[in-house]
Amino acid sequence: MADVKTTSFNLSCPVPRVADDRIVLAHGGGGRLTHQLIEKIFMPAFSNTALEERHDGAVVSVTGSRLAFTTDSFVVRPLIFPGGNIGDLAVNGTVNDLAMCGARPLYLSAGFILEEGLEMETLRAVVTSMQEAAAKANVKLVTGDTKVVDKGKGDGIFVNTSGIGVLEANVKTAIGPQSVQPGDVVIVSGDLGRHGIAILSVREGLEFESLILSDCAKSLAISRSIVERRN
Amino acid sequence: MADVKTTSFNLSCPVPRVADDRIVLAHGGGGRLTHQLIEKIFMPAFSNTALEERHDGAVVSVTGSRLAFTTDSFVVRPLIFPGGNIGDLAVNGTVNDLAMCGARPLYLSAGFILEEGLEMETLRAVVTSMQEAAAKANVKLVTGDTKVVDKGKGDGIFVNTSGIGVLEANVKTAIGPQSVQPGDVVIVSGDLGRHGIAILSVREGLEFESLILSDCAKSLAISRSIVERRN
Repeated sequence: MADVKTTSFNLSCPVPRVADDRIVLAHGGGGRLTHQLIEKIFMPAFSNTALEERHDGAVVSVTGSRLAFTTDSFVVRPLIFPGGNIGDLAVNGTVNDLAMCGARPLYLSAGFILEEGLEMETLRAVVTSMQEAAAKANVKLVTGDTKVVDKGKGDGIFVNTSGIGVLEANVKTAIGPQSVQPGDVVIVSGDLGRHGIAILSVREGLEFESLILSDCAKSLAISRSIVERRN
Repeated sequence: MADVKTTSFNLSCPVPRVADDRIVLAHGGGGRLTHQLIEKIFMPAFSNTALEERHDGAVVSVTGSRLAFTTDSFVVRPLIFPGGNIGDLAVNGTVNDLAMCGARPLYLSAGFILEEGLEMETLRAVVTSMQEAAAKANVKLVTGDTKVVDKGKGDGIFVNTSGIGVLEANVKTAIGPQSVQPGDVVIVSGDLGRHGIAILSVREGLEFESLILSDCAKSLAISRSIVERRN
């Protein structure tokens, strides 16, 4: 190798390279870094057929029945936002993940991680909303857990909801990413991005002419005519 | 009401009264305040027969089968401790909760809440331990979720594991708090308090003549001879 004299130009890159030795916020954002995390860390460890579907939940067999099983943690700020709160969001999110597996949601669990100093009335409001959302979706919250972390080690309330549903025998086409085909019709139950804008409007102090409410809700019932693709 | 002159004595109470309008650490400790929280906040909202058992998990019926369903969040510090880490603790904790319902553990979910800045190698070590513990317990981790929170809004890694198990048809006596009777034999698989002391020894810098390792492990298989009470 030739002896090369180098001169320092104090170069800097306008787009900082993401270090891959530490977790950054984008690892939880659902984009490229989330997929990297799944491919590099989670899949090599846990790989199995249910997980490899990369679906909203797993479809598993238990004593001859096909069940869907899913989990989601909720870390939204503010805890209470226009049109909902972290409680109904957590119930509807998991109910909807079960529906996306073609399952009828049956049972939910709730795991709370509370930050020391949280106002009891906030927790009560969140829990009440969870129950109202569960009743609307006709699911029962049957098991739970509560942990409290030191002030400054959490963010008010984190809640994990996991859920079990049963696949109806008459759902013939597997509902999942691998079943999506060109020409499929996308049915939208409301405005795209409404929930996200409702959260951002209070978090960033954005003002609009009208109040933007989250449309957080349980999915519409999956109609057989949508589920079964006409051949 | 009489006009009463009051004199300030600057009184202070040696044992501060716990304010019940805010969450304190003891609400997550499993003692009196945890029970208050369950009775005052969770039960009035969610009350149903499965939850009222106040058991380690819920026993529910799904298409004719009896399943156990449980959830637990893990917030331990340090993340890696003598004899284990938050990963195998999270798998074994939920596997053991299913066993305590008399169920054979089948499937687990994992919900991660990661703090921005967490070292990737720590996450990798935790995930590897989870898989090793899952393989030992013969359960599959089939569904998961990852969220990342701002630095200072979490504590490295929080992990929730929820689990599904199936009740064996030959388990005749319901396993649960309501079945405990005077004269029952308590079978202990190791030293009481070993895991707790292993954690405290590193957290508080306690030193012992020998290294105290956590005995975090899956339960021994529940033997029919233990489960079925002789009449």
